[in-house]
Amino acid sequence: MESIKDLIWKKGLTTKDFVDKIGKVGFQSIELGKASDLIVKMKKDSAKIFLTFTSNMVTSGLRGFFAQLIKLKMADIIVTTVGSIEEDIMKSLGEKFLIGTFDLDDVELHEKGMNRVGNLLVSNESYCKFEDAIMPILDQLYKKKPRYAVSELLREIGLTLNDENSILCQAAKNNVPIFCPAITDGAFGFHLYLFQQKHKDFIVDVVEDFKNILLSTTHDEKKGVICLGGGISKHHAILSVLLNGGAEYALYMTTARESSGSMSGATTREAKSWGKIKDDSDAVTVIGDVSINFPLAMIAALETLSEEGFIKNE
Amino acid sequence: MESIKDLIWKKGLTTKDFVDKIGKVGFQSIELGKASDLIVKMKKDSAKIFLTFTSNMVTSGLRGFFAQLIKLKMADIIVTTVGSIEEDIMKSLGEKFLIGTFDLDDVELHEKGMNRVGNLLVSNESYCKFEDAIMPILDQLYKKKPRYAVSELLREIGLTLNDENSILCQAAKNNVPIFCPAITDGAFGFHLYLFQQKHKDFIVDVVEDFKNILLSTTHDEKKGVICLGGGISKHHAILSVLLNGGAEYALYMTTARESSGSMSGATTREAKSWGKIKDDSDAVTVIGDVSINFPLAMIAALETLSEEGFIKNE
Amino acid sequence: MESIKDLIWKKGLTTKDFVDKIGKVGFQSIELGKASDLIVKMKKDSAKIFLTFTSNMVTSGLRGFFAQLIKLKMADIIVTTVGSIEEDIMKSLGEKFLIGTFDLDDVELHEKGMNRVGNLLVSNESYCKFEDAIMPILDQLYKKKPRYAVSELLREIGLTLNDENSILCQAAKNNVPIFCPAITDGAFGFHLYLFQQKHKDFIVDVVEDFKNILLSTTHDEKKGVICLGGGISKHHAILSVLLNGGAEYALYMTTARESSGSMSGATTREAKSWGKIKDDSDAVTVIGDVSINFPLAMIAALETLSEEGFIKNE
Amino acid sequence: MESIKDLIWKKGLTTKDFVDKIGKVGFQSIELGKASDLIVKMKKDSAKIFLTFTSNMVTSGLRGFFAQLIKLKMADIIVTTVGSIEEDIMKSLGEKFLIGTFDLDDVELHEKGMNRVGNLLVSNESYCKFEDAIMPILDQLYKKKPRYAVSELLREIGLTLNDENSILCQAAKNNVPIFCPAITDGAFGFHLYLFQQKHKDFIVDVVEDFKNILLSTTHDEKKGVICLGGGISKHHAILSVLLNGGAEYALYMTTARESSGSMSGATTREAKSWGKIKDDSDAVTVIGDVSINFPLAMIAALETLSEEGFIKNE
Repeated sequence: MESIKDLIWKKGLTTKDFVDKIGKVGFQSIELGKASDLIVKMKKDSAKIFLTFTSNMVTSGLRGFFAQLIKLKMADIIVTTVGSIEEDIMKSLGEKFLIGTFDLDDVELHEKGMNRVGNLLVSNESYCKFEDAIMPILDQLYKKKPRYAVSELLREIGLTLNDENSILCQAAKNNVPIFCPAITDGAFGFHLYLFQQKHKDFIVDVVEDFKNILLSTTHDEKKGVICLGGGISKHHAILSVLLNGGAEYALYMTTARESSGSMSGATTREAKSWGKIKDDSDAVTVIGDVSINFPLAMIAALETLSEEGFIKNE
Repeated sequence: MESIKDLIWKKGLTTKDFVDKIGKVGFQSIELGKASDLIVKMKKDSAKIFLTFTSNMVTSGLRGFFAQLIKLKMADIIVTTVGSIEEDIMKSLGEKFLIGTFDLDDVELHEKGMNRVGNLLVSNESYCKFEDAIMPILDQLYKKKPRYAVSELLREIGLTLNDENSILCQAAKNNVPIFCPAITDGAFGFHLYLFQQKHKDFIVDVVEDFKNILLSTTHDEKKGVICLGGGISKHHAILSVLLNGGAEYALYMTTARESSGSMSGATTREAKSWGKIKDDSDAVTVIGDVSINFPLAMIAALETLSEEGFIKNE
Repeated sequence: MESIKDLIWKKGLTTKDFVDKIGKVGFQSIELGKASDLIVKMKKDSAKIFLTFTSNMVTSGLRGFFAQLIKLKMADIIVTTVGSIEEDIMKSLGEKFLIGTFDLDDVELHEKGMNRVGNLLVSNESYCKFEDAIMPILDQLYKKKPRYAVSELLREIGLTLNDENSILCQAAKNNVPIFCPAITDGAFGFHLYLFQQKHKDFIVDVVEDFKNILLSTTHDEKKGVICLGGGISKHHAILSVLLNGGAEYALYMTTARESSGSMSGATTREAKSWGKIKDDSDAVTVIGDVSINFPLAMIAALETLSEEGFIKNE
Repeated sequence: MESIKDLIWKKGLTTKDFVDKIGKVGFQSIELGKASDLIVKMKKDSAKIFLTFTSNMVTSGLRGFFAQLIKLKMADIIVTTVGSIEEDIMKSLGEKFLIGTFDLDDVELHEKGMNRVGNLLVSNESYCKFEDAIMPILDQLYKKKPRYAVSELLREIGLTLNDENSILCQAAKNNVPIFCPAITDGAFGFHLYLFQQKHKDFIVDVVEDFKNILLSTTHDEKKGVICLGGGISKHHAILSVLLNGGAEYALYMTTARESSGSMSGATTREAKSWGKIKDDSDAVTVIGDVSINFPLAMIAALETLSEEGFIKNE
C-alpha cells in the first residue's frame, strides 16, 4: 500500500498537479484522484462513454463544459432530464441565468418572476423565450413526419441551434445521441401537449428511443459510465449498459448516500449485484458536490489525455 | 412560542401519542409532528392529494401501506417511477423480496441471481415472473387498441391484478390514476420495446398522459402534495400542481439536501419562488429515512382522521 | 433470509408494534428494528451500558428521557459535552426553551437575546440563571477541597439539584458517573476560569477523570455502547471501552457519513479494526435524526424489557 | 446580480484560475469561490485567524499543509482534538500512514494491527512509537514544574520536534498556540494518566487554558475563524471569539447539515443569533469534503496573497 503524502503548496500549481497531490491526501480527495485516473483509462481503452447529469448542472455553468466534452469526444452518449434540454436551449437563445444565494426571499423572487435553483436564478422570461423558440421548431418537424423518437427530436432541435457552448448543438454536430427518458417532465412537456392538442397524430415515441439507447452500444464494446448525480439519468444509462453486458468502467459522483436504498445513492458495489457494472470493473464513487469535483477530476484527466495525444488540443 | 417538553415514556404508549410527544422534543421530531398535523389538515380541507414515491419504497414493505392509503382515500393521484410498477406486479404475483444487509458481497449476490437495493434483495426470478405476466397483458390490450396513455395502460394492468396489497390494483379499483413519466426506464421498457418490434403501431403516449395529469385537478381545487424522496416523481407532481396554480399543502420527506441545487433536495421554500406551492401554503420538510418517518407521521394522522370520522375504519 | 412484509396500519397501533412492523419494511427502518432488539439484548445480558449524546439533544426534550433512562438503570455511564451540563441545569432551574423554526431571522434573534440551536431557542436569560446558580456551588465545593475530577464535580452539582427530569440529578442519585472530557468548552468553562482567577489552587483534574472512566468497567464485564451523534462523547466512550477490551454491543445513531473519515461518521465496522468493538460483537448503525429514531427504538425496547421484568415499571 | 459563466477548459489551467472559473459555475463551487476570496480578505484586513480542524485531517496529508499555513502566517491560533496532536507527533517520528479503501476487511485489519480511519490506515506500531517518545518528554517537563496549561504543554512538545511539516513544530517556532480542549480523549490521555499515577501533583490545567484562548485576542482586534469540520474544535474557537465580541470573518467547511441541530452542522447564520459571528460579518459555508475543498480554496487564496505581497513566497 502507498503512503499518505503531506500536501505542500508551491506557487503556480496547475490543476493537474493539484489533483495529483490531493490524490495522496485522504478521504474523498483520494477517490477524486482515482476518478481522474479512471477517466484517462476509459478513454485510452476506447470505451464508449455514457455521460449522465441532472438538469441543475445545466442550470449551472457546467453546461458549457459538457458541450466542450462532447466536442472533445469525451462523451459518446448523453442521458439527462428535460430540464437540461430546456435550459440549454434558453442559454443558446442568449438568456442569462443569475448567481444568487441559498437564502433569498422566495416569496419576493416569485413576485419578480425569478425561479430559484439552489443559489442560481432562472427568470420566467427565459421560459417565455423557450416557448417562442420551440413551437416553430415543432411545426417544422411535424411537416416532415408525425412520429419521433425522443433522441431524434433532440437531434433535430440541436441542428437548429448555433452555439458552440450548447450541449444539444455539439451533440447534433458530433453525432452524440441525447436520451431523455422523461421528456414530458418539464415546460417542454407542456408545449408538446399543446402541440398534440392541435395535431392528434403527433407522437413522441419513448419506446422507440429505448431501442435506440439499447442499440447505441454492444456486448463486445468496452463501456464506461460517468454518472453525475442520480435519478433516472443515472438509472437509464446503467440499465442500458446492463442489457449490454455491464460496464467495464464506472464513475459515480453524488451527494446521495446509500442508507435509504435509493437509486441516487446506490453505489458502484451495489451495481455489481445487478450486473450493471462488471464484477471486475474499475469503479470509483466520489461523494460531494459535482460542481467542484467533476471539473476538477475531468480537467486533470483532459490535461493527461491531451499531453499523450488522446484528445485534440483546443 | 411553545416550549420544548421533556419526553417521558409511559408503558403502552401508542404510535399516535408517541408522535404527539416527539412533536415537542426538537429538530426533525418537531417537523415530523408538524407533518402529521399537515396530513390531517389537508384531508379535512378535502384537498386533492398527490402522493409521490420512488421505486425503492415499493421494494420495501411501504408498498402495502401505499395500497392501503389509496383504499382509505388518502391519495387521489399517484406519481412514481417504473420500478415501482414492476415490483408491485412481482409482489402481486407472489414473489417474496428478502431482507439482507448493506454489506453483502455483491459479486456473490450476482452469481446467485440476487439484486441488491440497499439492505433488500430482489431475485432475477422475480423479473422473469414479471416478464411472463406482462407480455400476455400487452397482447390483450393491443387487441383493444394500439395507443395508450401511460396511466391508462397502468390502470388496465391494475384491473388484471387481484391483490388487496397492490398499489396498481387498489388504484384501479378506486379510480386513482398512476402517473409514471419515464415508463421505459426499467425492465418494463425492455418489454415494451420487444412488443413494439412486433407491433410497429403500438404507441405508449407520454404526451397524452401529460394532459391527463394536468387535467387531474384544477386551479379552484385545494391541492396537497406528499413527496417521498425526490427525482421525477416529485418533480412531475409539483409541475402539474404549478400549472394548476400551486399547492395549498406540501409535505416533503427526503434525505437529500439543498446544497447541490438538485430537485431531490429542493425545499418547499424554493418551491415558492416557482409558484409550485403557494406563498401562503402550509409546508413541511422532514429530513430522514422515509421508511421510518412516513409511516410514523401518516399513522398518527390516520388515527386522528379515523377518530374524527374522516376516514372509514378498517 | 427473512422476507419483507407489507406494512398495514391497524387502529390503535402501539409504538412497540409499530417498531416491530417497520423492522420488516426496509432500509433504515430495518436497522431501527435491529437497534431496538440490540438494546433488549445488551440489557438482558447485564452489559454495562455507556450512553453518549451531544449537547443539542439536551437542548431538546430528550433530556427528560435520558434522565428517565438513568432512573430505569438503562445507562450505567454517561459521556457528553459541557453544553449538556449547562442546559440540564438551566432546565432544572425552571428555564423554558422554546420551539422555533430553522429559518428564523438570526440577526433579529440576536437583538432579542435568543440563541438558536436548529429549530430550538435558548435565551441569554437562561445563561444568566446558570451563572447565578453555579458560582455559589463552586464556592461550596471549594470549601471542601480545591481539586476535583470532572465527574466528581458533576456529581456534586447533581446532588444540589432537585428535579426528577434532570440528568445530573438522576445520575447523582443512581451513582451513574457523567464524563465530560472537554469541561471548559462552554459557558461553564468561563465560570471555572473566573473562579480560578480568585482561587489559583482550584483544579479541575481531567487526567484523574480519565482514570475514572477507565476504571468504570473491566475487561471481564460485558460492555455495550449507545452513541447518539458523534464527536468526543462518542469517541471518549469507545476509547475507554477499547482500553477495556472492546464492546460486546454497539449501537450508533447518527446523521454523519463515513465518507470523510470523521469520528462522527465512523461506522461500527471501522471500530472493529481498532478493537473498539469486538470482532464478533452485535453492532447496529441507524442513520437519521436521533430525536426520532432513538426514542422510537428505545421505547420499543423498554416495553419488552418491562414486559419481561428486566426493568421496573414506572 | 452576476451571471453564471459557462466553464470552458483551457490547457495548462492553474489551480487559481480553476477556482476563479468554478466560482461562476453554480452551487457549492460558487461558495468555494467566495471562501477563497474571504480568506484573502481576512488576511489583508490583518484579522487574527483561528484555524480549527478535526484529527482525521491530520491523519490525512492536510497535516503538512496546516504546518505550511502556520509558517506562512495564515493561522494565528489553532484549535484541534488530541488525535491531531498524537498523529502529528507520530509522523514527525517518521511513521508512515497508509492509503487503503473504505471497504477493507476490518476484522482482518484488526489482526494485522492496522487501525482504519475512512480510507486511511494507522498502525499500532505508530502508537507504540508515540508512547516511547512522549513519556521522556513528560519526565523532562515535570522536572521544570508540575502544572501546565494544555497549550503550554503542546508548545513544549513542539519545541522537541524537528520536522518542517509538523504542526506542533511550526506552531512552537512561530508562537502560534495550539488549543485542545479535550486533551485526555486519546492515547495521550492514557499516557497522562499513567504519568499522573506516579506523580500525583502533576496537573494538566484546562481551566488555565481557557484563560489563554480567551486572552489570545481582544474585542478590538479583527477576528476570522476558519472551521474545518465540526465538533469541539469548531465550538471552542467560536466560543472564545464570541467572548471577544464575535468574528468579522467566518468560513465553515463541513459535510454536516443543520437539520439535526448539531454544532457540527450549525451554520454561520445560526452563529449570528449567538453573537459568535457579527451580524454584518462576511461568512461563507462550503458543504463537502474538506480534503478537496479546503486546499482548493486556500491555495487559490495563497496565490493571490503571494502575488500581492501579503505572504512571503516559499
